[in-house]
Amino acid sequence: MPYFDAASAAPLHPVARQALQAALDEGWADPARLYREGRRARLLLDAARETAAEAVGCRPDELVFTPSGTRAVHSGIAGALAGRRRIGSRLVVSAVEHSSVLHAGEAHEAAGGSMAQVPVDRYGAVDPEVFAGALTPDTALACLQSANHEVGTEQPVAEVAGACREAGVPLLVDAAQSLGWGRVPEGWSLLTGSAHKWGGPAGVGLLAVRKGVRFAAQGPADERESGRAPGFENIPAIVAAAASLRAVRDEAAAEAVRLRALVDRIRTRVPELVPDVEVVGDPLRRLPHLVTFSCLYVDGETVLAELDRSGFSVSSGSSCTSSTLTPSHVLRAMGVLSEGNVRVSLPAGTSEQDVDRFLEVLPGVVAAVREHLGVPSAEVRPAADSLVVDALGRRCPIPVIELAKVIGDVPVGATVTVLADDEAARLDIPAWCEMRGQQYVGESPSPKGGTAYVVRRVS
Amino acid sequence: MPYFDAASAAPLHPVARQALQAALDEGWADPARLYREGRRARLLLDAARETAAEAVGCRPDELVFTPSGTRAVHSGIAGALAGRRRIGSRLVVSAVEHSSVLHAGEAHEAAGGSMAQVPVDRYGAVDPEVFAGALTPDTALACLQSANHEVGTEQPVAEVAGACREAGVPLLVDAAQSLGWGRVPEGWSLLTGSAHKWGGPAGVGLLAVRKGVRFAAQGPADERESGRAPGFENIPAIVAAAASLRAVRDEAAAEAVRLRALVDRIRTRVPELVPDVEVVGDPLRRLPHLVTFSCLYVDGETVLAELDRSGFSVSSGSSCTSSTLTPSHVLRAMGVLSEGNVRVSLPAGTSEQDVDRFLEVLPGVVAAVREHLGVPSAEVRPAADSLVVDALGRRCPIPVIELAKVIGDVPVGATVTVLADDEAARLDIPAWCEMRGQQYVGESPSPKGGTAYVVRRVS
Repeated sequence: MPYFDAASAAPLHPVARQALQAALDEGWADPARLYREGRRARLLLDAARETAAEAVGCRPDELVFTPSGTRAVHSGIAGALAGRRRIGSRLVVSAVEHSSVLHAGEAHEAAGGSMAQVPVDRYGAVDPEVFAGALTPDTALACLQSANHEVGTEQPVAEVAGACREAGVPLLVDAAQSLGWGRVPEGWSLLTGSAHKWGGPAGVGLLAVRKGVRFAAQGPADERESGRAPGFENIPAIVAAAASLRAVRDEAAAEAVRLRALVDRIRTRVPELVPDVEVVGDPLRRLPHLVTFSCLYVDGETVLAELDRSGFSVSSGSSCTSSTLTPSHVLRAMGVLSEGNVRVSLPAGTSEQDVDRFLEVLPGVVAAVREHLGVPSAEVRPAADSLVVDALGRRCPIPVIELAKVIGDVPVGATVTVLADDEAARLDIPAWCEMRGQQYVGESPSPKGGTAYVVRRVS
Repeated sequence: MPYFDAASAAPLHPVARQALQAALDEGWADPARLYREGRRARLLLDAARETAAEAVGCRPDELVFTPSGTRAVHSGIAGALAGRRRIGSRLVVSAVEHSSVLHAGEAHEAAGGSMAQVPVDRYGAVDPEVFAGALTPDTALACLQSANHEVGTEQPVAEVAGACREAGVPLLVDAAQSLGWGRVPEGWSLLTGSAHKWGGPAGVGLLAVRKGVRFAAQGPADERESGRAPGFENIPAIVAAAASLRAVRDEAAAEAVRLRALVDRIRTRVPELVPDVEVVGDPLRRLPHLVTFSCLYVDGETVLAELDRSGFSVSSGSSCTSSTLTPSHVLRAMGVLSEGNVRVSLPAGTSEQDVDRFLEVLPGVVAAVREHLGVPSAEVRPAADSLVVDALGRRCPIPVIELAKVIGDVPVGATVTVLADDEAARLDIPAWCEMRGQQYVGESPSPKGGTAYVVRRVS
C-alpha cells in the first residue's frame, strides 16, 4: 500500500526504531542527575547533540532539541525577535512559509510587532533582490524556508542569507523539509528542523542558534536545553532522531537521484495522461521527492478519497478538503490553480512499480470525479450573448465547472460572469483562464452577494 | 542496582514499552490526514485520550496531550490567566509548587501580573483557610499541587477546591506526582500531569481543562490538540503514556500499601541509625513511595555521590549539589534543615531487600562524610565567653559544622555568632537550633560582608 505523503510524516526509519528501543533502556532517567542512570542519560543526550550538530553544520552548544519542529519555529522566532527588540519589531518572511512560521508572525503582530510577507513567483520562489528590499533598518528577523513543503521549490537561501548579512539582519531558515537531504547552505543565523519529516520519531525538533546571534528565550524559565526548550528531555526519541538523521543522510545522495527520476516521471506523465492538469513548483530547483499538481474540475477531497480507496495516500492543498476551508496559502501566493490539488511526496525506498501504478490509477480517478461532477466535454455549442452564471453557495470546484460549461456558449469577445462566494474561486478562475487561454477581466462585488468574476472568451 | 528516584523519572513500565513499540507501526502518520495511515493514527490518539481522560476523571474533549508536564503547566497557567484577564491578574500558588509553576508565575509577574505565595506549615502543607484568605476578588487563578514532589506531603486539595469554588476562582492542580496513585479529589478546574513520573515515556504531559473554565491558549495558533498544544502529536508516546497510566493504576492500591510500609520503615529507622537527622514531610498525609530526610553536618553532593558509589540513586534538595546553588525552595518554605538532604522515592516493585540494604549502607556513608568534614564529637569542652565564628566564603554545611564545633565552648546563656554568606545558612542555622534545642536569636548584616547569625546556648 504505497504511502506518498512523506512531507507530512515519513515512516519511521529502521535505524530510528533500533536506536529508540536501545535508548528506552539507557535514556529514561533525568540527565540533570548525578547518579549512574542520570549520567548514562546525559551521555546519550550529549552524543545525540554531537551527531545532530554535525548533520546540521553547527557546534553542539548551538543546538537544542525541542518537542517538535513547530515548537522549534515558535521558540526560534520569539527568541530572536526578543533578542533584537531594541533594533525594531519588523519580521520579514516569505509568503509561502510553513504555517508555524506565519502563526508565530501573527502572534508577533498581535503583540504589537509587524510582519512583512515577501511575494513569490509562479514557481513559489522568492526573488533575493525583492527579499533584500524588504530588509528595512528596523527589521529584527527574517525567515526563509530551505524548500517549500507543498510544492517542493527550493528557495535561494544562500543569496538571501547574503542579503541578510549585508543588512545586518539574522536569518532563520526553516529546514524541516530538506534536512534529511543535506545541509542548508551557509549563512543562516537560526535553523529549525523536525525529526518525523526525515524518518525520525515524532516528538523531536531542532533549534540551532549561531553563537553571537542575539537571542532571548521567551516564556517561563527552565534550566533544560540551555533554557531554550522547557520540560524533561525526551532522550530516547532524541537519540533516535539523531541516529536516523545520520542514516538518511548517508543514503541521501543515491536516494535523491532515484526519487528525482521518479518525480520527473510523474511531472512528465501526469499532464499527458490527465487533461487539464497544472503541475506546479520549480521543475529543477526542487526537493527530490516531491511533486504537486492541480486538476481542473475536481475537488481535492474526493480525489484524495478515491486515491485512498485505490491504495495511495497523498495530501492536498485544495480548499475542498475537510480539514481546510480556504485554499493553501502557498498555492494562493503562487497564483496557481488550487482545485483538485494533489501533493505526492515519496518516502525513501519508494519503488518504481508503485509510481507506475499511481500513474495508471490517477487518470481513471480524475475522470470519474469529473464525470460525477458533470464536467462539460469540449464540443462546440451555438454561441449566445454574454452570460451570467450563478454559483453562489456552491463550493469549489463547482464555480469553475459552471464557467467551463458555458464558455463555449458565448461568442468570442463576449464575457461570462461567474457569481461565487467560495474563496477558492478567486484563485481558481484566473488560473483556469491562464490554462485555457481565455482572458480574465477582473472581479467586483456582486449585487447578489459574493463576488462577480468576469471572463472574456478569446479563443 | 536500586534506583530510588522515581519522583524525578520512573523507569519505563513494561506496558508502556509494549504499547510504544506497537504504536510505532500504527501511529507514525499525521492524524489530521484522511488516508488510512492518518485514520489509524487518529484512532490511536482518540483511544489514548479516552483512556487518559478516564484515569484523570474528565471528558476526553477536556484533555489534551502536551510535550511534557512542564509544558502542560506553562500552557495551563498562561491560558487560564489570559482567559480571566478581565477579572484580574493575580495568581495564587502554594510556596512549595514545582518550579514549572513558580516559573510560569514569574513570567506572569514579568508581564505585569502578580503572584502570591501561600505559606506552608513545617510538614509542607498549606492551610485551606490561609489559602482561602489569599483569594482576593482580582484573583484570576489558583494553583495547588496534589502532593509535594520533594517531601511527599499531600495537599488539602478538596478543601482548597471548595474555597476556590466559593470565591469563584478556578483551581489548577499539578498532579504530576500523584496521578499514578489515583485520581485527584473532585473540584479542580485545570489539571496537569507528566507521563514519565508514572512509568510512561518522556515526551508526554496532560492538560485537562474543565468545560466552562475560561481558557485562552497563548502563543502562536495551531490547529492540533484543540489549539492548546502546538506541534505534531507524538502518538506512539501518547499511546504508551495512556496505556501505562491505566496499568499502574490497576496496580496502585496494592503497591501503595507495600511501598507505604517500606517508607515507614525508612522514616522510623533512619533517625535511629543516623544521629542528627531530621525526617521531613507529613508522616501520614503523604505519597506512598516518597520520604525525605536531612542530615546535619553533611553536604548533599557528597552524600549523593557516596550513595551512588554504593549503588543507590537518590536526589537531594540541598544547596550543595552541582545542579543548584540555593537550597530547595520547598525545604526553605517549610523552614526545615536543608543540609545533607536526601530524597528517596521508590519506584513500583522496589524490594524490601533493597530498602534494608539502603538502611545498612546509609549510616556508614553519613558517618564517613562527617568524619571527612571534621564534625565535632559531643564531648564537653571548657566554657568560654560569647564567640564569633567566621565562615565567610565557606559553603554549606561548613557554617553549621563550625557552629556545632564551638557551641560547647560558650557558657549557657552566651551566644555564638556565625558569619556566613552561603544562602543555605539562613535556613540551616535556625533548623540546627531547633534540632539541638538551642535558641536562634536572629540575623543581621555582618560588617565583614555576608550575614551574622546569632545563636544562644540554652542547654
